[in-house]
Amino acid sequence: MTRSKRMEMMQKLMGKHDLKAIMLSSPNNQYYVSGYKAIIYSRPLFYILTQNESAFIVPGLEEAHARHAAQVDRVIVYYEHPEQAHLGTNPVTSLLAYMQTNVQPGKVGVEFNAVSMELEKALLAAGWELVDVSRDLLNCRVVKDAEELALLRSAGEMVSLAVRASLEAVRPGVTELEIDQQGHKAAFEEASRLYPDTIVGVNALTPSGIERTLMPHVFSNTRKLERGDILIHTRHVVLNGYIAECERTCFVGEASDRQKNAFSVMLAAQQAAFDTIKAGVPMCEVDLAARSVIQKAGFGDYAIHRTGHSMGLDIHEPPFFRFDEKALLEEGMVFTVEPGFYVPGLGGFRHSDTVIVTKDGYELITRAARDLESLIL
Amino acid sequence: MTRSKRMEMMQKLMGKHDLKAIMLSSPNNQYYVSGYKAIIYSRPLFYILTQNESAFIVPGLEEAHARHAAQVDRVIVYYEHPEQAHLGTNPVTSLLAYMQTNVQPGKVGVEFNAVSMELEKALLAAGWELVDVSRDLLNCRVVKDAEELALLRSAGEMVSLAVRASLEAVRPGVTELEIDQQGHKAAFEEASRLYPDTIVGVNALTPSGIERTLMPHVFSNTRKLERGDILIHTRHVVLNGYIAECERTCFVGEASDRQKNAFSVMLAAQQAAFDTIKAGVPMCEVDLAARSVIQKAGFGDYAIHRTGHSMGLDIHEPPFFRFDEKALLEEGMVFTVEPGFYVPGLGGFRHSDTVIVTKDGYELITRAARDLESLIL
Repeated sequence: MTRSKRMEMMQKLMGKHDLKAIMLSSPNNQYYVSGYKAIIYSRPLFYILTQNESAFIVPGLEEAHARHAAQVDRVIVYYEHPEQAHLGTNPVTSLLAYMQTNVQPGKVGVEFNAVSMELEKALLAAGWELVDVSRDLLNCRVVKDAEELALLRSAGEMVSLAVRASLEAVRPGVTELEIDQQGHKAAFEEASRLYPDTIVGVNALTPSGIERTLMPHVFSNTRKLERGDILIHTRHVVLNGYIAECERTCFVGEASDRQKNAFSVMLAAQQAAFDTIKAGVPMCEVDLAARSVIQKAGFGDYAIHRTGHSMGLDIHEPPFFRFDEKALLEEGMVFTVEPGFYVPGLGGFRHSDTVIVTKDGYELITRAARDLESLIL
Repeated sequence: MTRSKRMEMMQKLMGKHDLKAIMLSSPNNQYYVSGYKAIIYSRPLFYILTQNESAFIVPGLEEAHARHAAQVDRVIVYYEHPEQAHLGTNPVTSLLAYMQTNVQPGKVGVEFNAVSMELEKALLAAGWELVDVSRDLLNCRVVKDAEELALLRSAGEMVSLAVRASLEAVRPGVTELEIDQQGHKAAFEEASRLYPDTIVGVNALTPSGIERTLMPHVFSNTRKLERGDILIHTRHVVLNGYIAECERTCFVGEASDRQKNAFSVMLAAQQAAFDTIKAGVPMCEVDLAARSVIQKAGFGDYAIHRTGHSMGLDIHEPPFFRFDEKALLEEGMVFTVEPGFYVPGLGGFRHSDTVIVTKDGYELITRAARDLESLIL
């Protein structure tokens, strides 16, 4: 049902741009249209759709997986063992051979944001005219259907549980990685209990101490927490490809008065963003609502990132809650709400929650205590 | 010391291709030349080197991190908050503005395997001539220096410890994810104990049961192990960016005679590969040595992947132990040794270990029991 709707979207896209085929190389777009996602380390996979059929070009070691999971008409394999080498050993050669036989001369839709110059040159040399469909694919993906929303709600529950488990482990002497570990454990155990045959991924970043929390995106390391530390625990849980995010700023044992004040500003900014969200509202207004609280408190110069991003198969998907984004919110879009600011000498302040946009407001799909009292640990 | 040697390599590269600058967009190449690796979700970073200076173009939320970690002469920032928007909000615009002022007209080296068509078009429209340096960069990275080898040895110890911890958890009723979890825990705790202020990453895949082990690269899920299951536990540990790999095929409680036979063939194939490795040997010979053991046992058609790949900053780096790879092994190269075959009705059979190539042979940097007796769990 879902799949046939997505195939319709793709056929419409071909009509819109007068394409003879669409070729997708990014794993998440491939997953979106085919239900199959490969782990790509060094061996590329190509999904290709014409008016007549859909096909995957895959390496030999993905053949069983593709035949098992991919909703396509054909699986074409390139090899790296001598027994089958005569059938082709080069992914791009196999792609071009397939296209030459199965795609009429003309325009082919590809993702300009994913196709490398290397692949482009091979496609151009073979005579194809390339048209960008990366924005169209993102537009298809931005409003989630019922099945996607159900997965995101489950991911939201898992990430909330994992955040709570990680924060319970916060105390002096424990390392950032050990904090992360507790949440990973909780997510893996709970998913094992609740969801049979389900893929679960985890990701966490826990910069601690004033200097490290000023860097919003750093990998966790083996720094040991000290009494009085501020920390930002960032976490994602991925359930069958769909990602929910939950982040909390907290303190080890105590916070200074200036930190408490900044924390309350951050909390008010997130609430202002929540209160602005509903279908029909321009996305910039959500950023501006949060930003105005931060600016009034004198922290505007330190609020160096947008207030949120769309969520789904990528950790960050466009569109964004950014001061210059005029697009309107729609029901079924999914966003993080995470205004933040980073004050030298004081630390970084940011919570993040994931919401589904509704007609009249939003549905919060992550739940972990947000108030200061609960977060002095 | 290391850094100045790498700067020399880059300057030589500019000379070789008559380049006015080198622009790198892949995080691992950026890390290799600058010591700074950002987490890139949706905001690109560009490293650029001319004869006069090195610079990073970074988003606002990476500014503190880049100034802290990047060994470059200049950090240029693009923004997403209105207070600084007049200084630029678009990464590519900021890159082009920098290049217009600081790079003489002519050729610029970029990674054809990493630069998207989108970025390429912007660079071409601004008048730059682009030359591929992706192969050169990989060539620079393939022989590791003493500092890199030390990190890889530590990563090897950590991944071995984690594999042992995961395998200890194997029993009926436990899920694939719970197996992974035990190794993650061991790695995080041991790294916390041994290595202060160190970044540690983990990755594991544990397909279980005959059908799932026929798919060499699938994400772990919540399938529960059953008595008699075969499983392949795949694991990576990343220490400050450097990755070691260790993988073991094992059984829950019991194995059939046909499985025991296949296991012994796999073990002999891995040993044949080990025995072939030393500086000066063509890489294909390592694949052929392993493959010939597998072929003689009648499993050649099922040995659908090469015998190993280079390791370092990427999980898979070229060159490969592939049947058609004529390049010669050199001292200080690092490879996985992982011949595998996948027999319908029987399961997948693959161990993997990581080795450093030496003048007379190899140094094994991963250590976990490989014999059948130790791996019927």
